[in-house]
Amino acid sequence: MGNCGTIAIMGGGSWATAIAKMMLERNDSIHWYMRREDRIEEFRRLGHNPAYLTSVHFDVNRIHFSADINKIVEEADTLIFVTPSPYLKSHLKKLKTRLRDKFIVTAIKGIVPDENLVCSEYFHQVYSVPDENLAVLGGPSHAEEVALGRLTYLTVGCADLEKAQNFADMISSEYVKTKISDDVIGIEYASVLKNVYAIAAGICNGLKYGDNFQSVIMSNAAQEMNRFLKIVHPIERNIIDSVYLGDLLVTGYSNFSRNRVFGSMIGKGYSVKSAQIEMEMIAEGYYGTKCMKDINKCLHVNMPILDAVYNILYERISPSIEIKLLTDSFR
Amino acid sequence: MGNCGTIAIMGGGSWATAIAKMMLERNDSIHWYMRREDRIEEFRRLGHNPAYLTSVHFDVNRIHFSADINKIVEEADTLIFVTPSPYLKSHLKKLKTRLRDKFIVTAIKGIVPDENLVCSEYFHQVYSVPDENLAVLGGPSHAEEVALGRLTYLTVGCADLEKAQNFADMISSEYVKTKISDDVIGIEYASVLKNVYAIAAGICNGLKYGDNFQSVIMSNAAQEMNRFLKIVHPIERNIIDSVYLGDLLVTGYSNFSRNRVFGSMIGKGYSVKSAQIEMEMIAEGYYGTKCMKDINKCLHVNMPILDAVYNILYERISPSIEIKLLTDSFR
Repeated sequence: MGNCGTIAIMGGGSWATAIAKMMLERNDSIHWYMRREDRIEEFRRLGHNPAYLTSVHFDVNRIHFSADINKIVEEADTLIFVTPSPYLKSHLKKLKTRLRDKFIVTAIKGIVPDENLVCSEYFHQVYSVPDENLAVLGGPSHAEEVALGRLTYLTVGCADLEKAQNFADMISSEYVKTKISDDVIGIEYASVLKNVYAIAAGICNGLKYGDNFQSVIMSNAAQEMNRFLKIVHPIERNIIDSVYLGDLLVTGYSNFSRNRVFGSMIGKGYSVKSAQIEMEMIAEGYYGTKCMKDINKCLHVNMPILDAVYNILYERISPSIEIKLLTDSFR
Repeated sequence: MGNCGTIAIMGGGSWATAIAKMMLERNDSIHWYMRREDRIEEFRRLGHNPAYLTSVHFDVNRIHFSADINKIVEEADTLIFVTPSPYLKSHLKKLKTRLRDKFIVTAIKGIVPDENLVCSEYFHQVYSVPDENLAVLGGPSHAEEVALGRLTYLTVGCADLEKAQNFADMISSEYVKTKISDDVIGIEYASVLKNVYAIAAGICNGLKYGDNFQSVIMSNAAQEMNRFLKIVHPIERNIIDSVYLGDLLVTGYSNFSRNRVFGSMIGKGYSVKSAQIEMEMIAEGYYGTKCMKDINKCLHVNMPILDAVYNILYERISPSIEIKLLTDSFR
C-alpha cells in the first residue's frame, strides 16, 4: 500500500478499466465500485471487464469488487471517480459515509448537470471536501491505448502538490509518465471543452471541410479554451502544455473519439437523436456543450465555436449555415 | 492589375501551382517562371502543370510563362518565390536585374543552405531588399486542398502591414481567407521547424507509438517552437495562432505530409538514403533539421526534438534509442 492508502475506482467504463490496469501495475490490490452486480459476477468469471477493454486481463484476486458504494467508500482512502458525469449525482445520493476525509480524484471529464459545476467544485461545495483533498486526473489519453500499454502522459492536479505527486507515483509505470499541476479547475474545464471542440471538428469533417481547416479549427479551439480558462480561473498556465493542448488534439484529431464521430454524423445530416441511436451511446460533449453554454452566460467569454456547436445541437440550426458563419470569425 | 502590380510566381512545384490558382481567382494574368522549357511547353499543351496538381486546369492565355528568370523579374513588380530552398541560390545566381525595388514574397518554407538564413534575411542581406518590401506567405495549407478549393487560411507577414494587406487581398477568395502579421522571421522559422517536427511525429509513428503520444509530441513541439522563436526574434506573438500552431498541426498530423511519411519510414528502419529513393523526393525537413541544428549552435535554445531528429538523420543513432531518450524529457 502506497502513500494513497486503499485505492478505490468508482465506475465501470473504459477509462475506469484503464485506470484499474494502471493502478495494478504499482499496487497489490484495489477496490472497485460498479453499479451492476451482474457485471461484477461476469468480470470475476471472465477475468476481464465484460463490456469495455475486453483484451485487458485482470487477476481478479487482487480486486475487491462491490456494487455497494457505501462499503467501498468506507474501506477506501483514495476514491477515483470515473462515472459519466450525468450519473455522478445519483451514485452519490446513495452515500451514507462522509467524503471529506477521503482523497478524491476526479477522472470524469464532465460537468455536473443542473449544478453547472466541475466535479471538484461539486465535491467541495456539496460534500465539503477541502481543496487539498481534491485532485483531477487529466491528460491526453485514449483508454484503448493505455490498454495496449502504449506510452501515455497524464497530469495530476491538486492544490496540495505533495499529494498530487503521491498519487502520480501510484499511477506511473513503464508506459505511463506523469506530471503534476495545481490547476485543478483549469484542467477540468479544459477536459470538458475539448469534447465540445471534438464535436465541432467532427461536424466540419462531416461537412467535408479538409485538413487545412481542421488545423485552423484546432488552433482557434486552443485560443477559445485559453480565453475561457483565463476568465474562469485566472492563474498562470501554459495552454500548450500537454494536459490542455495535447488533450484537445488527441480528442479532436482521432476518429476513435466518440465526440468527433458524433459530430461527424451531425455534419453529415443525422439528427441528434438518430446519431445517438446509431452510436448506441451518448457523447459526453453533447451534455458538456449545454453546461458550458449555461456557465458562459454569466462569464460572457467570446466563444464562437461553443456557440456554433450549441446552436447546431440544441437550436437545430443547419450545420452548414452555422459553420459558414463560424469560419468568418476565425483567424 | 491590383495594388501589387504585375505578379510573378517563381517555381513550378505543387505549392507554386496552388498559388498560381489562387492568384488567378483575383488577377487577370500572372507571370510564371519555371526552370525547364520543356515543362512550360507541356503545361501550355495540356492546360495544366504536367507534374503537380494535374487536376487544376488553367487558362494558359492568362499566364506569361518564361524559363528566363531575368525576363520575368524585369517585367514583374511582385515576385513570389516558391522554389525548394536548396535551389534558391542557384536560381538567383542567374539574375542580372536588381531585386531591391521589387516586392518579394517568400513562400519557400526553408532555410538557405550554407548561409543558414531564412529566405527573407537572405534577400535582405545579399540582395539589399528593404524590410518593407519583404513578405512571407504562411499558414496551414496542403497545396492539394487548395487545388480542391477547400477552405484555407493563410497569413501574410510583412513589416509594412499595408503592403501585407494589399498582397493578402490579391490572394483572398471564396476558399482562401487571409490575415496579416508583422512577424516575418517568426513565421519563416515556424514553417521550417514544423517540417522537423513532422519528421519526428513520423518517426514515432513508424516506431508504433500511438495517438496519445502523438498529441504529446505535438504539444512539446509547440513549446519548443515557442522557446526558439522567443530567442531568435523576441516580439509579442501568440504561438497558438493558426500560422504557427495550425501549420504545425496540418503537417504533423497528416499522412499526406512528405516530411511525416519520410519520418515514418525512418522509424520503420529505412536508412535516410533508401527512404529518399523510395519516396523519389527529398523531404524539406531533412535539410531544415541540419540548418536549424547549426543555427541553434549559437543560440543554445533547449530543443530536444530537433536534437533527436538530427541525431537520427545525421548521426545514425537508432531511432528507438533516441526517441526513448526524448520521451524522458517530455512533459
